[in-house]
Amino acid sequence: MIVQYEGTRYGGWQRQESTDQTIQGKLEAIFTKMQGEPVTINGSGRTDAGVHAKGQVINVKLDTNKSLDELQIYVNSYLPEDIYIAHVEQVDDRFHARLSAKKKQYTYRIVNHTNPNVFKRRFTYQIVEKLDCKKMNEAAEYLVGVHDFASFTSKKKSKKSTVRTIENISIEQVEDEIRMTFVGDGFLYHMVRILVGTLIEVGLGQKEVAEIPKILETKNREKAGYLVPAKGLQLDWVSY
Amino acid sequence: MIVQYEGTRYGGWQRQESTDQTIQGKLEAIFTKMQGEPVTINGSGRTDAGVHAKGQVINVKLDTNKSLDELQIYVNSYLPEDIYIAHVEQVDDRFHARLSAKKKQYTYRIVNHTNPNVFKRRFTYQIVEKLDCKKMNEAAEYLVGVHDFASFTSKKKSKKSTVRTIENISIEQVEDEIRMTFVGDGFLYHMVRILVGTLIEVGLGQKEVAEIPKILETKNREKAGYLVPAKGLQLDWVSY
Repeated sequence: MIVQYEGTRYGGWQRQESTDQTIQGKLEAIFTKMQGEPVTINGSGRTDAGVHAKGQVINVKLDTNKSLDELQIYVNSYLPEDIYIAHVEQVDDRFHARLSAKKKQYTYRIVNHTNPNVFKRRFTYQIVEKLDCKKMNEAAEYLVGVHDFASFTSKKKSKKSTVRTIENISIEQVEDEIRMTFVGDGFLYHMVRILVGTLIEVGLGQKEVAEIPKILETKNREKAGYLVPAKGLQLDWVSY
Repeated sequence: MIVQYEGTRYGGWQRQESTDQTIQGKLEAIFTKMQGEPVTINGSGRTDAGVHAKGQVINVKLDTNKSLDELQIYVNSYLPEDIYIAHVEQVDDRFHARLSAKKKQYTYRIVNHTNPNVFKRRFTYQIVEKLDCKKMNEAAEYLVGVHDFASFTSKKKSKKSTVRTIENISIEQVEDEIRMTFVGDGFLYHMVRILVGTLIEVGLGQKEVAEIPKILETKNREKAGYLVPAKGLQLDWVSY
């Protein structure tokens, strides 16, 4: 299934014991009620509190007589208005929304203007000082490719690989916004938001373009830029 | 001053005794606190509960040593994040935001798609059935010009003129949206929302294009279309 949500009101994707305000929790509650027994779903990845999704992908094993259309209508009828199932299809038993994922795209939206935008405030992060998009694009070129992104994650060191491939980064001005799009085979915890924070520091002249390869080399979180707020981030799509 | 707001959380523009959740009420409370005595502001018009504004214009008489910039920063610092003063300027004593207004533009946004859009839900109205934009544009041509719009207002008959001039109506498809823009010298109570409801009925084939001049002639509210929800409507600008 493809799931869309505005993340503002939620404590992120992942089910938590402390709150029922998670996307996974909301969905599982509906499937569990429908099946009369506990149902667990797999998401393509955990979006943080406040992050939005246009194309989160989930898989779930159900025992039902409902057609795919009936299932979609049933689930949507129980979902709040900020979560919506946009597509349902039958998949192979071996399909796993996270493990089978090949590529993902995230977009980060910055309102680069002295005035805040009351209409976009839930979906954008405001930077008042003018960003230098040309420099940001130059810096982004160093990030594209296969790299160890250990400097760009909030996760403490573990044995798991922090090597990822970024296929493309595009940074473009659209009206009062700068939109930064990241396509890759996977992203570490907080990786996109730290990449954005680092590119913003380049765009403000606080970091040099040439520092980027050095930041990658150090594998030290403290060398990279700041963690930008979640609300500007959206998971666009996942491909398999 | 130019004021922008997302109307979702408010009972409309106009101050009310029963609630402090109005745009006028929020602004007047700040000016009153600043001046230490009751301050009344004039708005260019009363937007209904749930209607948004990108360019509401207000005027207010203040006795202050603050510069225009300081005033703007002061007021914005007390406003909630869904109301924002985008511009402040000094005007002639005779200026009145409503009485001096020459033209206004409103936009109504319809998501014309089988799927609701979770990101636009506060700013758009969804119509699932495909709308015929060509027919809607033909119908709109009959509405442009100087007409008695008595059929297109929820207000009970009074001695006040219901003649208004619509200078332009544009209806265009933008991605999954149909955007309808109205420019005129003034709009009656609920007029834009009833015009939109009538044009939607034409777009769905429930009303014929040729009925429009007849609806205008009857001066009967019941002959026009339905009142569409407030959330799709935005006051774009007012000119003087």
